[in-house]
Amino acid sequence: MILPRLNFKIIMIILRLAMNRRSVRRYLSTPIPKEDIKYVLEVARHAPSGGNRQPWRFILVYSDGLKREIRKYCEEAEKRFYERAPKDFIDWARSRGITWVKSFLTEAPILILVFGKTDEPYWIGSVWLAIGYLILAAEEKGYATLTYTPSNVKWANKLFKVPEEYVLAAIIPIGVAGEKPSNPGRLELSEIVYLEEWGEKFN
Amino acid sequence: MILPRLNFKIIMIILRLAMNRRSVRRYLSTPIPKEDIKYVLEVARHAPSGGNRQPWRFILVYSDGLKREIRKYCEEAEKRFYERAPKDFIDWARSRGITWVKSFLTEAPILILVFGKTDEPYWIGSVWLAIGYLILAAEEKGYATLTYTPSNVKWANKLFKVPEEYVLAAIIPIGVAGEKPSNPGRLELSEIVYLEEWGEKFN
Repeated sequence: MILPRLNFKIIMIILRLAMNRRSVRRYLSTPIPKEDIKYVLEVARHAPSGGNRQPWRFILVYSDGLKREIRKYCEEAEKRFYERAPKDFIDWARSRGITWVKSFLTEAPILILVFGKTDEPYWIGSVWLAIGYLILAAEEKGYATLTYTPSNVKWANKLFKVPEEYVLAAIIPIGVAGEKPSNPGRLELSEIVYLEEWGEKFN
Repeated sequence: MILPRLNFKIIMIILRLAMNRRSVRRYLSTPIPKEDIKYVLEVARHAPSGGNRQPWRFILVYSDGLKREIRKYCEEAEKRFYERAPKDFIDWARSRGITWVKSFLTEAPILILVFGKTDEPYWIGSVWLAIGYLILAAEEKGYATLTYTPSNVKWANKLFKVPEEYVLAAIIPIGVAGEKPSNPGRLELSEIVYLEEWGEKFN
């Protein structure tokens, strides 16, 4: 038997990971080995950033007490947000089973709090690019994630003694998925990619 | 001979791609097969986004004339930016050979202009997360990229007839690298990851 040489370009690993990943809101309590959590952070650490300033910092939360506090702060803000949110958002959220209740904040074995340094150039873009790296790395390791953006974030600086020039950009629960969300779908390439002018088809 | 079963978790593909990727500013004119450019966009298309609103649009630029116009607009703004930029930025830029001259804008075989829909929730984060996906996919295919953020972007709406609610977030040249940049280095994990409180070591 002749085994073909492995061609990673044909295997299309990144596309598989990107297509298979879902935003997961239910988690099992299964613990994550430290080497795996280090792996996803190691990947995020290597993201490019404006001026290579690496404006990201990560706080890992394992303890139930802290998770409950985080959930309390987030749900208070979410309740207010849902009272005022546009109807099309509420409709979309309901169709995905999303409400102001954020049980993933206490369910997931680890919360990764991602902070951005607001006085660095292009800090938001840099931080979210690193989050893109991180969630693909988690998918590669078989872990589910969610890129949760709290409506109110000021409490985080006080709770975790974070310098004021940093702001909480996202909370990423990570763990073994406790649900299999349906595919929410994506726009087709022809709807989002144009050739040299807005609206010109690229085929 | 017994061949070990392939274990993708041990291969650590994403980390290899993240570590090997460099921000590249010189490109060969080697053309990119259409299937490869579609691949990187297909990956970006599957990124998660706020409310699954997919606030990204991509305009591909192949023509030399348009590239020259883009470069002209960008360099005009860069010249002004460099006249007023903080000294530590200028020093860092000089150490990496970066100036207001943006030759990659006319050298790369394709420029990917990434636009964000500014009236969608969390549009900046969503767009940059998709850019993270895209540049890892390009690395997987063996192409170099740069996440270039122009200092002035208004010209792009006029030049490409882009609706005013969209804004140019980044220009990504993509192609075969014409240089091998040195490793600019990254902060260690211990410098950017804390355990449950700012400054608390995670080991």
